[in-house]
Amino acid sequence: MNKWYIEKGDQGDVVLSTRVRLARNLDEFPFPAKLDPKGRNAVNKIVKDALTADGADTFKCIDMKELTQTQAVSFAERHLISPEFTQSREGRTLIITEDESVSIMLCEEDHIRLQVMKSGLSLHEAYDIANKIDNILDGKLRYAFDERIGYLTQCPTNLGTAMRASVMLHLPALTKTGKLSGLAATVSKLGLTIRGAYGEGTAARGAIYQLSNQITLGITEQAALDNLNAITLQIVAQERAAQRELLNNPAEEDQVYRAMGILNSARMMDADEFMGLISLVRMGAARGLFNVTIERINELIVNMQPATLMEMSGRNLEAAQRDAERAKILREILVS
Amino acid sequence: MNKWYIEKGDQGDVVLSTRVRLARNLDEFPFPAKLDPKGRNAVNKIVKDALTADGADTFKCIDMKELTQTQAVSFAERHLISPEFTQSREGRTLIITEDESVSIMLCEEDHIRLQVMKSGLSLHEAYDIANKIDNILDGKLRYAFDERIGYLTQCPTNLGTAMRASVMLHLPALTKTGKLSGLAATVSKLGLTIRGAYGEGTAARGAIYQLSNQITLGITEQAALDNLNAITLQIVAQERAAQRELLNNPAEEDQVYRAMGILNSARMMDADEFMGLISLVRMGAARGLFNVTIERINELIVNMQPATLMEMSGRNLEAAQRDAERAKILREILVS
Repeated sequence: MNKWYIEKGDQGDVVLSTRVRLARNLDEFPFPAKLDPKGRNAVNKIVKDALTADGADTFKCIDMKELTQTQAVSFAERHLISPEFTQSREGRTLIITEDESVSIMLCEEDHIRLQVMKSGLSLHEAYDIANKIDNILDGKLRYAFDERIGYLTQCPTNLGTAMRASVMLHLPALTKTGKLSGLAATVSKLGLTIRGAYGEGTAARGAIYQLSNQITLGITEQAALDNLNAITLQIVAQERAAQRELLNNPAEEDQVYRAMGILNSARMMDADEFMGLISLVRMGAARGLFNVTIERINELIVNMQPATLMEMSGRNLEAAQRDAERAKILREILVS
Repeated sequence: MNKWYIEKGDQGDVVLSTRVRLARNLDEFPFPAKLDPKGRNAVNKIVKDALTADGADTFKCIDMKELTQTQAVSFAERHLISPEFTQSREGRTLIITEDESVSIMLCEEDHIRLQVMKSGLSLHEAYDIANKIDNILDGKLRYAFDERIGYLTQCPTNLGTAMRASVMLHLPALTKTGKLSGLAATVSKLGLTIRGAYGEGTAARGAIYQLSNQITLGITEQAALDNLNAITLQIVAQERAAQRELLNNPAEEDQVYRAMGILNSARMMDADEFMGLISLVRMGAARGLFNVTIERINELIVNMQPATLMEMSGRNLEAAQRDAERAKILREILVS
């Protein structure tokens, strides 16, 4: 079965993916940070049973402590789990669908962290799927819920809808032309936040950003999704215009073609350089300079991350071996 | 008719070309620097008549002042004439064969500067051709010659045989590993000199060097050629070994493949960057990494020089237009 991220998505030239995440807690248990091992196991079992009660084999349950470190990090690289979820894995379960579009972390910060991912811009569709699964669970479990302040969560910033919706955006032209910092200030006033999606630090690797809603209290899910959707569409239009202008400059266009030339001929390619070059190539593909599809590039961005690369090759690799393996795959995929 | 430089040459992986140059002066005229216009015209006419007397249409006579600046510089880029010969062109003639292997400058530093070029290492063959033409001229003209000190030339460093033999060498690995400076000191003790073949300055553009004999007095032509030939073969062996060692290093091999990727995908390519990249690609081709032939690369090195590029495209080009035209031709020739 195809993974969700190789599907063609709406506004796919700029929007890589959409994610809707709901945080839920069980009324009769303390938050995970306060749970003893027995309590954690109980929470894991209760939620797993609720999800798989109807004999549905839609979901696969993964006991996090059964995973190798590489497998766990690869899940984080694919944004299926949070980096924190890979750190301490005892008493934690990951539940996923085969296409990896739905993933549920048990005993992360909250008892239940349910997320749905879709390719491109697809906020309402992602929410609808999350909502359906949430309704199933709601029918079988007793959520910690307060009529006045909504879903109770460990972190007060999630109180209310406890919904975090986000879109992953590729903004190479707005980054290059220095317009991104202004944009960050603007979206902040509109109740949103934007930050680099890959790696820590200030510079967003590959010019890939995550734009998400900040407000969960005093707003409905639909209103939050509408707001994020509208602002995303505006940014998409700005980025497209900036890309067209940038590529009208022969020196910038040259850099894009060179990036492709290096990616399809290098014998060694580390993850940092890859992210910089694939970002240029993705912009070129988005504006019709190359034959390669945006979905193929999205897949590469996922698969070329260090742990996922090792998972694909089926063995542990030293840094230099990873760089050689990455270069080899890139040459095969990006034939000019 | 094919130009001499696209022929396959002996030791061609390292030796681009061989050049033998003879300087001759007419007994009854002062050296060119002391000649008035009338005298220069007389020298031009006498030598031209001597060469074309037998009705041979082997030679094409070019009045240097009829050339555009671009045409003249292109001849210099192809090493058919000296850069000085392009500066003041009044009263100067260039005589060449169609394949450009023989070129004769009239009224350069000496009355006659006869040079023969061959692909690869071919010193004796080049000398034999030069000697044959020299004999024809000798039969019809009276050379300035002294029994004791040989051919008389304006510059005393040419007295004696007045022969300068040289080979153009591509030494990227000896350059990269820092062994070239030691080599320069060694060949100097053996009566030879080595210097960058392209451009001024210390760094040899494209790691292309000219190795030539320094001694013309008290040595026969054959002895000078034998000496240069033997030392060239030693350097060739050293360079080959250094190339093999260098390319065993994955990071260095990576640079070679990247150079090819950039050359066959860039949209803008200036002459300096081209020389650096083509040098790496030439080394890769010499060691069997690429399908492109050494002769094709040699041709590119000649044709991608600024004035020659404009001559090929048939129009004057601004720097940015040249860089775009150069990149376009490279993409066509270096298909991966």
